[in-house]
Amino acid sequence: EVGFDPKDHQHLRYNPLRDNWVLVSAHRMKRPWAGQVEKPSEEHIPRHDPRNPLCPGNTRANGEVNPDYESTFAFENDFPALQPNAPDPGSCQDPLFQSKAARGVCKVMCFHPWSDVTLPLMKKEEVVKVIDKWTELVEELGATYPWVQIFENKGAMMGCSNPHPHCQVWASNFLPNEPELADRCQRAYYQKHGEPMLLQYARREAEKKERVVVESSDWLAVVPYWATWPYQTLLLPRRHVLRIGDLTTSERGGLADIMKRLLTKYDNLFEISFPYSMGWHGAPTGPHLKEDNSHWQLHAHYYPPLLRSASVKKFMVGYEMLAQEQRDLTPEQAAEKLRNLPEEHYKTREN
Amino acid sequence: EVGFDPKDHQHLRYNPLRDNWVLVSAHRMKRPWAGQVEKPSEEHIPRHDPRNPLCPGNTRANGEVNPDYESTFAFENDFPALQPNAPDPGSCQDPLFQSKAARGVCKVMCFHPWSDVTLPLMKKEEVVKVIDKWTELVEELGATYPWVQIFENKGAMMGCSNPHPHCQVWASNFLPNEPELADRCQRAYYQKHGEPMLLQYARREAEKKERVVVESSDWLAVVPYWATWPYQTLLLPRRHVLRIGDLTTSERGGLADIMKRLLTKYDNLFEISFPYSMGWHGAPTGPHLKEDNSHWQLHAHYYPPLLRSASVKKFMVGYEMLAQEQRDLTPEQAAEKLRNLPEEHYKTREN
Ligand SMILES: O=P(O)(O)O[C@H]1O[C@H](CO)[C@@H](O)[C@H](O)[C@H]1O
Ligand SMILES: O=P(O)(O)O[C@H]1O[C@H](CO)[C@@H](O)[C@H](O)[C@H]1O
Repeated sequence: EVGFDPKDHQHLRYNPLRDNWVLVSAHRMKRPWAGQVEKPSEEHIPRHDPRNPLCPGNTRANGEVNPDYESTFAFENDFPALQPNAPDPGSCQDPLFQSKAARGVCKVMCFHPWSDVTLPLMKKEEVVKVIDKWTELVEELGATYPWVQIFENKGAMMGCSNPHPHCQVWASNFLPNEPELADRCQRAYYQKHGEPMLLQYARREAEKKERVVVESSDWLAVVPYWATWPYQTLLLPRRHVLRIGDLTTSERGGLADIMKRLLTKYDNLFEISFPYSMGWHGAPTGPHLKEDNSHWQLHAHYYPPLLRSASVKKFMVGYEMLAQEQRDLTPEQAAEKLRNLPEEHYKTREN
Repeated sequence: EVGFDPKDHQHLRYNPLRDNWVLVSAHRMKRPWAGQVEKPSEEHIPRHDPRNPLCPGNTRANGEVNPDYESTFAFENDFPALQPNAPDPGSCQDPLFQSKAARGVCKVMCFHPWSDVTLPLMKKEEVVKVIDKWTELVEELGATYPWVQIFENKGAMMGCSNPHPHCQVWASNFLPNEPELADRCQRAYYQKHGEPMLLQYARREAEKKERVVVESSDWLAVVPYWATWPYQTLLLPRRHVLRIGDLTTSERGGLADIMKRLLTKYDNLFEISFPYSMGWHGAPTGPHLKEDNSHWQLHAHYYPPLLRSASVKKFMVGYEMLAQEQRDLTPEQAAEKLRNLPEEHYKTREN
């Protein structure tokens, strides 16, 4: 339309994966910030801390001793939100007081024996081991559970209380809200358009280029057209892949590569170990393994909280909680910033 | 069910206002916390700060001078996310790249001429003035706009960058995601059960008592059965009321009263000025004023971030963002804690 510039003019964008809208008001970046600033994250993390329950050889809260692991290591969370044998709350006739049984398993998975490395600073082969372990856990837990959520909370700002590189894997006897929504939206799209939504989306974005952050022959990372967090990205395979376990050896190598490149750019943006929450969404498992899930495409979401600098985050508060998410720069501006950053990590450049 | 105890056994609860589920894992409160702690909020706020753009008589960023207001005062946000005349982004055929025009108005509304008071510490008559002004703004902006969102971000933790007591009012030419969902859920309930969902809900909660925090002849505040934030509350009239403008003079007085009581309990919980985001949801306005909105019931949501203490908040991160919201104490435990707190504010008790 004549006169419309997404950088200057607020508008709504549709999120086809969640069937809702985001308000893009890029001119808001001009407002001064006098609000809360975050503490810089701890910079000197010892390689091995005898009191850290995630390090090799240490004793955890429940008295168990970690093995002297040399690569990845997974164990059951000592304070799990989901346990395998919780009793059923029973049923109630009243539609306003409905509850259901929740059963599952919560695991913690360490990425590396050292506390002072992060994924972008690990060797490619070490990141491949992380992907292998993810695959193993999804196959093990997904044999019976309908949903296995791999997620990483990185940085104190994202509620992470342990600097040792790790993620969590929570399996549940129910399809949680977000995957249920992603399932519904992808299914409707597939029925209407005859092709998986995210497969088409990756192809279009690879042609358009303006929201691409990093790409390779097998993978693509973009700031999605409908991103809500300032530097949110969506990581996609270019081939139709239902679950992480369906990746070939070469695609796992390619994934390790593109993860390192994406996360290096994140760290380079403000020259800090970039905080985020990330997680994988693939086709449901357990009883769903036998169903047709062609509408699904494997993908990872990265949700980083920072907006202006290493210490000023985006507050998703009042209007966002009560009405609608709102962003202060366009996805294209965020993608361009990330794309133009060097692919060498600022920490290795310094040395 | 035999053996089931909501305080010990994780389970799912259904949120009929958002048509989704929350995972309640109350036993998680037992885990130790070694993560991020928040800074205590500034305690010595001057009554009048010559540099604060919200105080009476001061000059704002755009050069305008505030009047010497003596009660409430509303003005247009100097950095609005919504403006009245943004051009239309135009249409695109591709279902993956959909955008729409967003137009509206953003106002800031001061509650009181003094910076060192908050709603629970204001006189009842002063809170009535706030309610009157809310009503006036909803009627003025709602004459044309389909949605007028009143919301308050309180405290630095909730992205509030100015300690002067104030809220915001954003009107839009579209129904944002959250009210759209609330509309859809209330409509479906009404069609099925023949009565407004939240009117039935208030009646049931008033009988059950276990989730009630404060109540009066006209109003009820509960920790809803499906609360996601630890001390989230839902404030409801007991009579069928569509919009804030439909409240009688006596109901406005009652609202001022119950707000003061609820917010005093919040402050007393950890003896700090309690942070939260809150907002009002009532039947849509503008073109919807002519429609039948009997399924709607006016209500306010309070979303406070704190979990364990004045400095430890609930992180809604990895699992919550990627899968499903999870809470660490039951709504009944939260309601009981709040209900048992004194109704006299800790600051006035000290004097
Ligand atoms: O409008 P303010 O106070 O500048 O900004 C605050 O509230 C807005 C509406 O909830 C949010 O978008 C901002 O992230 C937050 O910092
Ligand atoms: O499991 P952790 O690391 O103890 O806890 C962290 O992640 C969980 C899952 O996203 C959240 O529920 C907690 O609020 C957060 O502090």
